[in-house]
Amino acid sequence: MNTFGKNFRITTFGESHGKALGAVIDGCPAGLALAEADIQPLLDRRRPGKSPSESARGEKDRVAILSGVFEGRTTGAPIALVVQNEDVKSEDYAELREAFRPGHADVTYFAKYGIRDHRGGGRSSGRETVGRVAAGAVALKILKGNGITVSGRIMEVHGKSGAKEIEREILAAKEAGDSVGGIAEVVARGCPPGLGDPVFGKLDAAIAGAMMGIGAVKGVEIGDGFAVAQRFGSGNNDPMTADGFASNHAGGILGGISTGQEIVVRIAVKPTPSIAKVQTTRNIHGEVVDISVKGRHDPCIVPRIIPVAEAMLALVLVDALLEQQMVR
Amino acid sequence: MNTFGKNFRITTFGESHGKALGAVIDGCPAGLALAEADIQPLLDRRRPGKSPSESARGEKDRVAILSGVFEGRTTGAPIALVVQNEDVKSEDYAELREAFRPGHADVTYFAKYGIRDHRGGGRSSGRETVGRVAAGAVALKILKGNGITVSGRIMEVHGKSGAKEIEREILAAKEAGDSVGGIAEVVARGCPPGLGDPVFGKLDAAIAGAMMGIGAVKGVEIGDGFAVAQRFGSGNNDPMTADGFASNHAGGILGGISTGQEIVVRIAVKPTPSIAKVQTTRNIHGEVVDISVKGRHDPCIVPRIIPVAEAMLALVLVDALLEQQMVR
Amino acid sequence: MNTFGKNFRITTFGESHGKALGAVIDGCPAGLALAEADIQPLLDRRRPGKSPSESARGEKDRVAILSGVFEGRTTGAPIALVVQNEDVKSEDYAELREAFRPGHADVTYFAKYGIRDHRGGGRSSGRETVGRVAAGAVALKILKGNGITVSGRIMEVHGKSGAKEIEREILAAKEAGDSVGGIAEVVARGCPPGLGDPVFGKLDAAIAGAMMGIGAVKGVEIGDGFAVAQRFGSGNNDPMTADGFASNHAGGILGGISTGQEIVVRIAVKPTPSIAKVQTTRNIHGEVVDISVKGRHDPCIVPRIIPVAEAMLALVLVDALLEQQMVR
Amino acid sequence: MNTFGKNFRITTFGESHGKALGAVIDGCPAGLALAEADIQPLLDRRRPGKSPSESARGEKDRVAILSGVFEGRTTGAPIALVVQNEDVKSEDYAELREAFRPGHADVTYFAKYGIRDHRGGGRSSGRETVGRVAAGAVALKILKGNGITVSGRIMEVHGKSGAKEIEREILAAKEAGDSVGGIAEVVARGCPPGLGDPVFGKLDAAIAGAMMGIGAVKGVEIGDGFAVAQRFGSGNNDPMTADGFASNHAGGILGGISTGQEIVVRIAVKPTPSIAKVQTTRNIHGEVVDISVKGRHDPCIVPRIIPVAEAMLALVLVDALLEQQMVR
Repeated sequence: MNTFGKNFRITTFGESHGKALGAVIDGCPAGLALAEADIQPLLDRRRPGKSPSESARGEKDRVAILSGVFEGRTTGAPIALVVQNEDVKSEDYAELREAFRPGHADVTYFAKYGIRDHRGGGRSSGRETVGRVAAGAVALKILKGNGITVSGRIMEVHGKSGAKEIEREILAAKEAGDSVGGIAEVVARGCPPGLGDPVFGKLDAAIAGAMMGIGAVKGVEIGDGFAVAQRFGSGNNDPMTADGFASNHAGGILGGISTGQEIVVRIAVKPTPSIAKVQTTRNIHGEVVDISVKGRHDPCIVPRIIPVAEAMLALVLVDALLEQQMVR
Repeated sequence: MNTFGKNFRITTFGESHGKALGAVIDGCPAGLALAEADIQPLLDRRRPGKSPSESARGEKDRVAILSGVFEGRTTGAPIALVVQNEDVKSEDYAELREAFRPGHADVTYFAKYGIRDHRGGGRSSGRETVGRVAAGAVALKILKGNGITVSGRIMEVHGKSGAKEIEREILAAKEAGDSVGGIAEVVARGCPPGLGDPVFGKLDAAIAGAMMGIGAVKGVEIGDGFAVAQRFGSGNNDPMTADGFASNHAGGILGGISTGQEIVVRIAVKPTPSIAKVQTTRNIHGEVVDISVKGRHDPCIVPRIIPVAEAMLALVLVDALLEQQMVR
Repeated sequence: MNTFGKNFRITTFGESHGKALGAVIDGCPAGLALAEADIQPLLDRRRPGKSPSESARGEKDRVAILSGVFEGRTTGAPIALVVQNEDVKSEDYAELREAFRPGHADVTYFAKYGIRDHRGGGRSSGRETVGRVAAGAVALKILKGNGITVSGRIMEVHGKSGAKEIEREILAAKEAGDSVGGIAEVVARGCPPGLGDPVFGKLDAAIAGAMMGIGAVKGVEIGDGFAVAQRFGSGNNDPMTADGFASNHAGGILGGISTGQEIVVRIAVKPTPSIAKVQTTRNIHGEVVDISVKGRHDPCIVPRIIPVAEAMLALVLVDALLEQQMVR
Repeated sequence: MNTFGKNFRITTFGESHGKALGAVIDGCPAGLALAEADIQPLLDRRRPGKSPSESARGEKDRVAILSGVFEGRTTGAPIALVVQNEDVKSEDYAELREAFRPGHADVTYFAKYGIRDHRGGGRSSGRETVGRVAAGAVALKILKGNGITVSGRIMEVHGKSGAKEIEREILAAKEAGDSVGGIAEVVARGCPPGLGDPVFGKLDAAIAGAMMGIGAVKGVEIGDGFAVAQRFGSGNNDPMTADGFASNHAGGILGGISTGQEIVVRIAVKPTPSIAKVQTTRNIHGEVVDISVKGRHDPCIVPRIIPVAEAMLALVLVDALLEQQMVR
C-alpha cells in the first residue's frame, strides 16, 4: 500500500538509488493556486547535507509538477510530483547486498519479497519521504487557506532537550560511529471542531497510523499520552467553561473527533540503525558476519523527521476536512 | 468509516441503547469451521458486570450468526453477527441529553453531526466494541489455524502493577466517584516474518491506527516504544546470530514488516470520563452547568479493553496474512 | 466485495434460505428524517408473489432499522437494516445439493469456494437484492431531497413491448416450464451537471459496474448505447443552444460527468436459468445428469429487477453527489 | 478517482498537452522480470500517426520505468511509468479555450471544476490512456505467466465489417470532416474458473466498469449481451456435458465468476466528437457560437481503443487473480 488517504489520496514511489522519487496526488480540489515554489521550501527543509549532524548526501531535490496544474491552478486532475535522484553512490552499499543491517528493514524486506534493492536501503530508505513531503506541501497549502497551521519541533534527543545540548549529543554519537534517538512533537492549530470519524476513522487513529508509518517511529501519543495512565478521571477530563475548554489534556481530540483546540502529537524516534560501529548480523546465506555500515547516514533522524511528520499530519487533516463536507 | 481492513473487512454498527449491535465480516476465507460457540467466549470476556470493578449493566451479549455459514463452515459470503441490547436504562441518561460530559465524545459528536444519540453514549459508547470483539473472534480463529496466538494483559493501573494493587486502585476510585487510567500490553506469538507492507501499509502503522481507534486510548508503543528515544543505535539494534535475533527491542517489526519474533504492543488508556464527581461543563445551549454522571460506568476501562485490543490486533494480522498471499 | 460505494457505502449480507438478509449503510449524512416506512414500500415493490408471473414465495420482507437513527433522524452512525427470511422451503432444493443448474452461479461458486450453500441459490439468489433495495430506499430519499428522481420501466420482454404482450409472453414461458429475458430502462431526472469523476470514477463507469453487478444482467447501455456505433459524429453529438442541449444521445453523461440532462440507462436481462424444463448438466462428482429445477422461480426477472436497478442507480448518484461537495 | 483496482492498483496522471503522462502500479507481485521492452510494444500499438486513418500527432511515447524494478525484476515496490509529451501544438486549441465542443467532456469538466485545461482536451483526452496501456502491459505479462491471453479486434465501424470496408468508412468520414463509431470485441482466453466475486465485485461488473470508463464507450456486453433479451432460458443456458460447457452464451462468466471458458466482451464506441464540420455550440460565457474543431483528431477511435480495452481487461483479470489467492 503506497497510497494514503481516502479523499485526498497520495501515491508515492521511488527508491533511494533509483532514477526518481515522487508522488501522485488524487482528489486535490480544483482551483488551488499551485506552483513548484509552494513545494520546494518543504523539500529543502527535509533535504540532507544542511549541517554536520546530517547525512552528507548532496541532493538538490528539485521538484517538478508533471500534471494537474493549468495556468497556475489545480484542475482537479491528479498532480504528479517528481524529484530526480542525483548524488547516488551505490558502491558504498556493495557490502549490504548480502548482509542485513541489524535494526533495519533489510531482513524483513528480504523475508517478504525474496528480492531486495539493497542500494541505499531501496524503498525502505528515508528518501522515500520525499514524495510524502512534496505531497504534504500541497496539503499544508490547503490547510493554510482554511486557517490551519501545522508545526513540529524536537522535544528531546537521547534524553536531552535544548538546541545546544541536542546538537552536542548528535555530534558525539556521530564521532563514536553511533546514532541516537529522540522525541518530536507536531501541533496543528486552527482546526475546526468536528474533524474525524467515530470508530475506525477516528482522527487520532488516522494520525497514529500516519505517524507510526514513518520509518523509525516506535511510539505515538496524543495530548498527554502515556501520562494519562497515572491519572484520575477528575484530573484528566478537560472542563468546559464559558470561554471554552479550561485545559487540553486530550490533545484536541475527543472520541476521535477534533474539539477545536490544538491537536498535539508526539512521536518516539529510534536511533538510526545504520551505524559505523561494528555489529554482529547475518547475511542472505544465513551466515553470521560482522558489519560496519558505510554510506552517508544521519546520526540522528529526529531533526529531519520533523517536516515528514508535519506532512503526514497535514495529509490526515486535509482528508478529514474534505470528509467533513459530506457529513451533514 | 465503520469498516476496518482491506482483505478481511469488518463493518460494525449499533449504539449503546439501540436495538442491537453487530458486525458484518467480508472477505473471510471459505471453508472455516465456525459457530456461535467460537465467538461467545470472547464476548463473555468483554461483557460488563462480571466483577465489582466493572459496570453493573447486565447484558448477556448472546451473538447470532445471520449469514455466511452453511453446515458449520464459512462459504465466502459475508458473515453478519448480531447482539441484541437488553438491559437498557436510558432514563439514567436524561441529564446528558443537553449537557456534555467533560472528557467525553458528547461535545465533538454534536459539533460534527449537529445531532447526537445521548442514550448511554450512543455510538461513542464502549458498547460499540461488541461488534469488534465478535468479528475479532473469527480473526483469532483463523490466526490459531496458522499457529498465531494473541494475548493481552494489564500492565499497570494508576501507576500500580499487580492484580491486588490494581483491584484496590480501581475500587478506591469507584468509591471516590472517580475513575483511573492504566496501561495494557498485547502480544502476538507465532507470526511468520514478512507480514506488513512498506510505506503506508506498515504493520506497526496498521496496529497503531487500530489501537488508537479504540476509545480511551491516548498512546501506542511498539516494542520498547518511547524508551528508544534515550538509546544509542548500538544499544537499540537487535543483533542477529545463528539462533535468530539476540533481543527484541523492535517488538517484532522492522521497516513495517514482521520479523517472526513476538509482536509487542502497549497502549495508554485514559481514565473513564464518566464519573460521579461533580464537574463543570457546558450544555448544547452554551450554558455552563454542573454535572454528576449517573448510569453504570466502569471506574477503570483497562481490564475490559484487553479483549478489544486483542481483537483489533487479530484483525490487523489476519488482514496482513491474507495480503501476504499476493506478494510474490 | 459485498461493499458498494466510496462515500455512501453499503455492505450487504444474507442468503436466500439463511436467517436474514440486510445491509449496513455507512456514510449517510446526519439529520435525515428516516423510518422503516421510507424503506418498506420499495421492498414491497421487489417482493415476490404479487402476481401469477412472479415467484410464489410468500415473504413479507418487513425491514427493521437496528441502528443509526435517533428520534426519527439519522445520526451519522451506520444504519443497519435487517429483513428476516420466513417462507423458506429448502427441501425443494435437495436435488441441487449436488447438481449444477445450467446458466446458474452454482458451478462457479463451487469452483471458487469449494463449498456452496445450495439452498435457494444461497448468496447468488435474487433475494440478495433485498439489502440493495433497502439501502437504495435511503439513497432515493436523499436524492429526492436534492430534486432528483429515479424511475425504471420494462422496455421489452422476449422482443415484445406493451404490458399485455409482455404478460402474455411471461405466462406462456411459465406454462412451458421455461423463462424469458428482456430489456429494462432506468432514468434519473433532476441531476445537476458535474457529477462523476474523470478517468476511473466516471459516472457511466460506476453505473455500468452497478448494473452489470445485478444478477442476470448481460449488457448495459448509456444514452443511445450500441446505436452510436452506426453514427457519424455530426449526427451523434448533442448541439448546445441557448436553451440547453438540443438532443440527448449521450444519455446525460459526457466524459464521465453528468450534463444536467436525463441520465438514461438500459440493461439486458437474461432469462432466469432456473427452469422446469429438463436440461443436461453436471454434478459435483463430474457426472452428467438431467435436471428439472423445482422451487418457486420467476419465469421472467425483468419486472422484479426494476426496483433493484433503481436502487443501484440511486446509490451511484448519492455517492457522486457527496463526492461533488469536495471537488472545489 | 484516478486509481483502479484493489490488489493490483494503478494510478494514472497526465494531460494531453502537459509535460508527461504515466501511471504508478502498486501491488505488483515481486520477482517478475520487467523492462521497458515489455511495455513499449503496447504503447506503440496505441500510438497515433501510424496510418492515414489516425491522428497525425507524432508522439514517440517512449516509456521510462522510474522505480520498483531492480536488476530486471520487480521488487514489490511501486512501479512508476512515465511518458513525456513531445509533439504538442496547443495553439490549435486556442479556439477551444472558450467554446465547448458538442459531444465532448469540455462542458462537463467546466461544470464540475470551474476550470479546464482546454489544450488538447487536457485530462479528458484519449492521451490519458497512455498510463492505462503502460500499466496494462505489466498486467498482460503477469497474465501470460498464468497462461492467460487477452486480444481485441474491431467488429464493425459505422455498421460495416471487414478491414477494407472499415478503412473506407473511416477515410470517407475523415474527408467529410466527420467521424464514425463502431464496435470492438475483447476476449480473454485461459482464465481459470473461480475469478470474480459475488455481489458487488462480480467479474462482469468490474469489466463493465472498466470498459465504460474508457472515453467514448457507450455500451458494454458480456457474452451474447443484448441478444439474451429475446431468448428463452432453455435456449440461453449453456449445458454442461462430460467435455465441459456445450456453448458459451454467458461469455465465460456466471454469477459474476469465471467459468473457465473464453471471456467475451463487446463495447460500443461512439464517433469522435471532435470534427471539422461546423457545429452549433455554446461557450463559457453562455453565448451560442459555431465551431469547427481543428487539431489532429482520429476520425474513428475504434482501432486505437483496442489496446486500451485489452489493457483494462487485463487489469481486471490480474486483480481478480490476486484476489483469488485469498479466498480459501
